[in-house]
Amino acid sequence: MTDMSPDLSAELISVAHEMAEAARHAILPHFRSLGLTADSKETVRFDPVTVADRAAEGAMRAVLAHRRPQDAILGEEMGRQAGSSGLTWVLDPIDGTRAFLAGMPTWGVLIAVADEGMRPLYGMIDQPYIGERFEGGLGLARMQGPLGPRTLAARGARSLDQCIVMSTFPEVGSAEEGAAFHRLAARCRLTRYGADCYAYALLAAGHIDLVVEAGLQAYDVQAPIAVIEAAGGVVTSWTGARADTGGRLLAASCPEVHAAALALLNG
Amino acid sequence: MTDMSPDLSAELISVAHEMAEAARHAILPHFRSLGLTADSKETVRFDPVTVADRAAEGAMRAVLAHRRPQDAILGEEMGRQAGSSGLTWVLDPIDGTRAFLAGMPTWGVLIAVADEGMRPLYGMIDQPYIGERFEGGLGLARMQGPLGPRTLAARGARSLDQCIVMSTFPEVGSAEEGAAFHRLAARCRLTRYGADCYAYALLAAGHIDLVVEAGLQAYDVQAPIAVIEAAGGVVTSWTGARADTGGRLLAASCPEVHAAALALLNG
Repeated sequence: MTDMSPDLSAELISVAHEMAEAARHAILPHFRSLGLTADSKETVRFDPVTVADRAAEGAMRAVLAHRRPQDAILGEEMGRQAGSSGLTWVLDPIDGTRAFLAGMPTWGVLIAVADEGMRPLYGMIDQPYIGERFEGGLGLARMQGPLGPRTLAARGARSLDQCIVMSTFPEVGSAEEGAAFHRLAARCRLTRYGADCYAYALLAAGHIDLVVEAGLQAYDVQAPIAVIEAAGGVVTSWTGARADTGGRLLAASCPEVHAAALALLNG
Repeated sequence: MTDMSPDLSAELISVAHEMAEAARHAILPHFRSLGLTADSKETVRFDPVTVADRAAEGAMRAVLAHRRPQDAILGEEMGRQAGSSGLTWVLDPIDGTRAFLAGMPTWGVLIAVADEGMRPLYGMIDQPYIGERFEGGLGLARMQGPLGPRTLAARGARSLDQCIVMSTFPEVGSAEEGAAFHRLAARCRLTRYGADCYAYALLAAGHIDLVVEAGLQAYDVQAPIAVIEAAGGVVTSWTGARADTGGRLLAASCPEVHAAALALLNG
């Protein structure tokens, strides 16, 4: 996929933006709707799924059916659909459903397109309530938002005691995973919780240094990986391997901070 | 202060909005500025104070010097200034400086005006990056934001196991305070961290049920108390007393949820 034509790149980017607009229109009427009910899948952890989540994935799949019927789809809500092009769209219509339920604007629409090896070529993190869109890959590393357009560029190297680290929950997965996270967090300057996919966007935009999560799925990570790598950051599993399918994720602003954090997670 | 004239109420509300606009213009050029340095007061905990924080308080004080020179001021950055009217403006130019440093849009400008007994008559929580403004008191309970204007109304009663609780840090103050918080949080449906003053706005807007914090100052609580009380919520200390001067704060959507949470915090 390294020889993708400029025309195909432009088409995929255009399709992603059309999908984000479709998701935005499907979701916003439900965000902060006071009659919101959480239809819970209730497995091990609280997992609310809203009407908005399903409506947004349906709206994005309708765009693909029209513009890219030859591509495969892997979506959080509606599963897998086969394709013939070698490309797979990976969709999480609302990443951060708990934030959504609480009215926090740190959820996002995640859209990625991956190659035959399920390596993300392009990703988008869209926050339609604030009006922010972060995208990376296929030659792009940019955001749009209330302060205008900006180029995405992750921060440079600094010592861990100058780093800001984020995770969604202070528990960070299992007891063992939590202990590893807190070993790292204790060495950092500042730890913040509760940001969901928004943390990856902040890392790509150069505002924070590390994001550490566990228990992720492919649809949680594909778009963030593309955006962060395009901005110069590094994303791997906690063992330093590719994290394209999810699991335990370590995102860092640069190779130096990544190496220091990886050592502590495995320390 | 219960016999305040409509003219004076309208004037105070108008002054508050002018102050919020002044703060917005002072702050936004610095938010997500990549050269941001944190000038730290470093007492017990990390307490960054940015150029934006001081510039915003200065800009708000300039509005007061012009429009309400007879009122006293209590500001986070520049301390107390005496007045002759019996009214005190209570200002926190950036509540949530750690969020601000990390690029998270959950900080806010807090503006309140209090009576002779330092009881807040009116308060505003302004989030200029998102473009949201929550205000309550002097006859108002309303917000403006990306989805348009709305009336603020806190949620009705429900059992704790249906409640969403927020706090800024999972530690929530001292070890004893943290234990009390987690005794309550364990009984709730969902716990979220990292929202700073934005949590109070979400409570007033009917999206969450409880906010529990410790170690607060008057300038942290005066605006949130006014906004939440105007929306029908209840705010007290952890002993059920008025919390106008800060300390440990329990904000709840309604008397029933407040009573249940108070019992657990003291259990």
